[in-house]
Amino acid sequence: MEYFLSDNYSTQTADEVGDLLRMAQDPTVISLSAGSPATEALPFEKIETWAKQALITTPAKALQYSASEGDGDLLWLVRHKLIEENLFRSGEKILITNGAQQGLEFAAKCLCNKGDTVLCENPTFMGALNAFESNGVQVKGVPMEQDGLNLEALEQLLKTQKNVRFLYVIPNFQNPTGITTSFEKRREILKLAQEYNILILEDNPYGALRFEGEEQPSIKSFDEEGRVIYLGSFSKILSPGLRMGFMVAAAQFFHAFVKAKLNADVHTSGLSQQICKQFLKETDLSEHYQALSAIYEDKCTCMVNAMKEHFGENFEFIKPQGGLFIWCKLPKEINATDFAKLAIGKHKVAIVPGSVFAVEKGSVNNFFRLNYSVPSKEQIELAIAALGQLYNEMKNQ
Amino acid sequence: MEYFLSDNYSTQTADEVGDLLRMAQDPTVISLSAGSPATEALPFEKIETWAKQALITTPAKALQYSASEGDGDLLWLVRHKLIEENLFRSGEKILITNGAQQGLEFAAKCLCNKGDTVLCENPTFMGALNAFESNGVQVKGVPMEQDGLNLEALEQLLKTQKNVRFLYVIPNFQNPTGITTSFEKRREILKLAQEYNILILEDNPYGALRFEGEEQPSIKSFDEEGRVIYLGSFSKILSPGLRMGFMVAAAQFFHAFVKAKLNADVHTSGLSQQICKQFLKETDLSEHYQALSAIYEDKCTCMVNAMKEHFGENFEFIKPQGGLFIWCKLPKEINATDFAKLAIGKHKVAIVPGSVFAVEKGSVNNFFRLNYSVPSKEQIELAIAALGQLYNEMKNQ
Repeated sequence: MEYFLSDNYSTQTADEVGDLLRMAQDPTVISLSAGSPATEALPFEKIETWAKQALITTPAKALQYSASEGDGDLLWLVRHKLIEENLFRSGEKILITNGAQQGLEFAAKCLCNKGDTVLCENPTFMGALNAFESNGVQVKGVPMEQDGLNLEALEQLLKTQKNVRFLYVIPNFQNPTGITTSFEKRREILKLAQEYNILILEDNPYGALRFEGEEQPSIKSFDEEGRVIYLGSFSKILSPGLRMGFMVAAAQFFHAFVKAKLNADVHTSGLSQQICKQFLKETDLSEHYQALSAIYEDKCTCMVNAMKEHFGENFEFIKPQGGLFIWCKLPKEINATDFAKLAIGKHKVAIVPGSVFAVEKGSVNNFFRLNYSVPSKEQIELAIAALGQLYNEMKNQ
Repeated sequence: MEYFLSDNYSTQTADEVGDLLRMAQDPTVISLSAGSPATEALPFEKIETWAKQALITTPAKALQYSASEGDGDLLWLVRHKLIEENLFRSGEKILITNGAQQGLEFAAKCLCNKGDTVLCENPTFMGALNAFESNGVQVKGVPMEQDGLNLEALEQLLKTQKNVRFLYVIPNFQNPTGITTSFEKRREILKLAQEYNILILEDNPYGALRFEGEEQPSIKSFDEEGRVIYLGSFSKILSPGLRMGFMVAAAQFFHAFVKAKLNADVHTSGLSQQICKQFLKETDLSEHYQALSAIYEDKCTCMVNAMKEHFGENFEFIKPQGGLFIWCKLPKEINATDFAKLAIGKHKVAIVPGSVFAVEKGSVNNFFRLNYSVPSKEQIELAIAALGQLYNEMKNQ
């Protein structure tokens, strides 16, 4: 039988990285390749209580069809939280999504035609790249610096690229670099967006997980005209498995996003929404964030210390102020995909090579990403010792 | 601020029907306009038990990130059920989706380019129409007859339309007509699909809710070459709020669908999947389906009797053998949207005018859909009496 796939889904590129990630599922492998929260940081027992409350007190809300926008009580609680964080303007609306990933998909779908351009930090979250590109969007990367993207490169692209619809940014503890965009750059990014009339898609999955430095205001908090569409997620503060996120957008976009939600899957799981409602009602968020951040700080410190010991003082990496990731730089002559293959093949340690996150092909071939949230401290020490040994062998070859 | 929406999402047609549906949410209105299962038919208490089991015995499976395809144990149970129903061939794979709606979206996304054509029964489920059209697909309707779509019209479209990618059908208790496609037509439909080399997207959300007549084999059960992509749903047999469905497809399509799932929302709620797993493990499905069907038969009979009494013996409607809907025909001179407006405005009864389901504009303007699963029998009797009165007034004007 002949078969046909759409242009957006027919490209079957050789999936070298997929193979690496699949190998990471071997239980004898120590995985530093995840993007998941620490399992011990998730409030399992409370979730069980909240699920029970939801199923006993509001069973129909949890189990029948409900509105595409989301449950009214949950929307009220999210709005309240956003107002406290200075992230919500009158005239804006909130849509409950299946994690922030669905917001990325909807942004591409509703805001871009095939062939339109979206700008991203380079490197960036591969889930965003895939969501944009699978909607036929052309993605262009803006190089990252220690304090956020390079503004000159951003302006250059805004001047030269046609039909740029939005800039996608993760200002806090970016995935994969862990970089936090500075206060000044946040303001400048919004100014440039205004000047060139593009939207900003601000994604903030890790913001609550800060363990060092001072909190920076979101770009959304400077926005007076609905230019910033904001994506929030409960994946790192409650549970990723519940698939709970939201997007905040001005009314003129909101209608399209709600339609997209209706077409995609009608609404987000009612049970997940009701659990999330209980979470927001019964949790002191600032205490909860502090407790989470302490877990992440401890593991991050453990990994940084091990890296200093096993890679040597000259090894370059970015120590994050929060979030889940450390971004590491190999000497130019070492390809990180080769390094990752040897790491898993010889040492049973899984890491993610930079190429996975490259917006511009070949731009970060000598970088790799480490995750410290999932492994235990013992695993971190073992894995980093093995990676350090491999690094020293390859460097001296 | 100027703003831009994609071509697929910028069409803001006047939303007359949306207004009608919103009016149906008024609690003083009796709604015969829903597409939901009977709330009393959902196993609320068992779901509470299954949720608890899932959160206590497999908390990480319920709450951490998991595979895009779906949970391994759940996939095994679904496969087992499909094999029993003769719906699964070796070489095929199953993807867990957020209800069958997400399968409709993925079919359009992965199987069609912008401007390609999809054929549907006319009238058909509006969620399918929206999913296809919002992906830039051209939809053409094949007129429905009492025993399924008109085969000559189907062949005519297959001969004349370019780039037809698939035919979308709901062979059991179709939405909105309640029609069940005959055995012969099921075979003929597959033959035509083979002859003209198109796929079939077979959607079966209501199949388990049969209370009359003999079960018909799915088109998928005749398929030896992976030409039929099958959509299943737990919305009518377990709970729609959990957003659980699945799609079965040959391996060459499956890769694209899994990618689409990853891009759309990573995976379906882990908690919903674990609850569904317990449901399949602990439920005698044939007993469960019988119990559900008894509820639906009772309500359907109640509505049919009330219609005979209040609309008169000459009123034309299709009495279904299962499912949720009765499809009613007004005299040509009465527009069903006007009828629906008066029904809600004067009598506080909500129904859905046929135009909502029209693939070809204007084709079913004198039809409307009634739902009997959601209202109580008392509400059915009150509502049908009011509709009958309105009908007799309008007919005699």
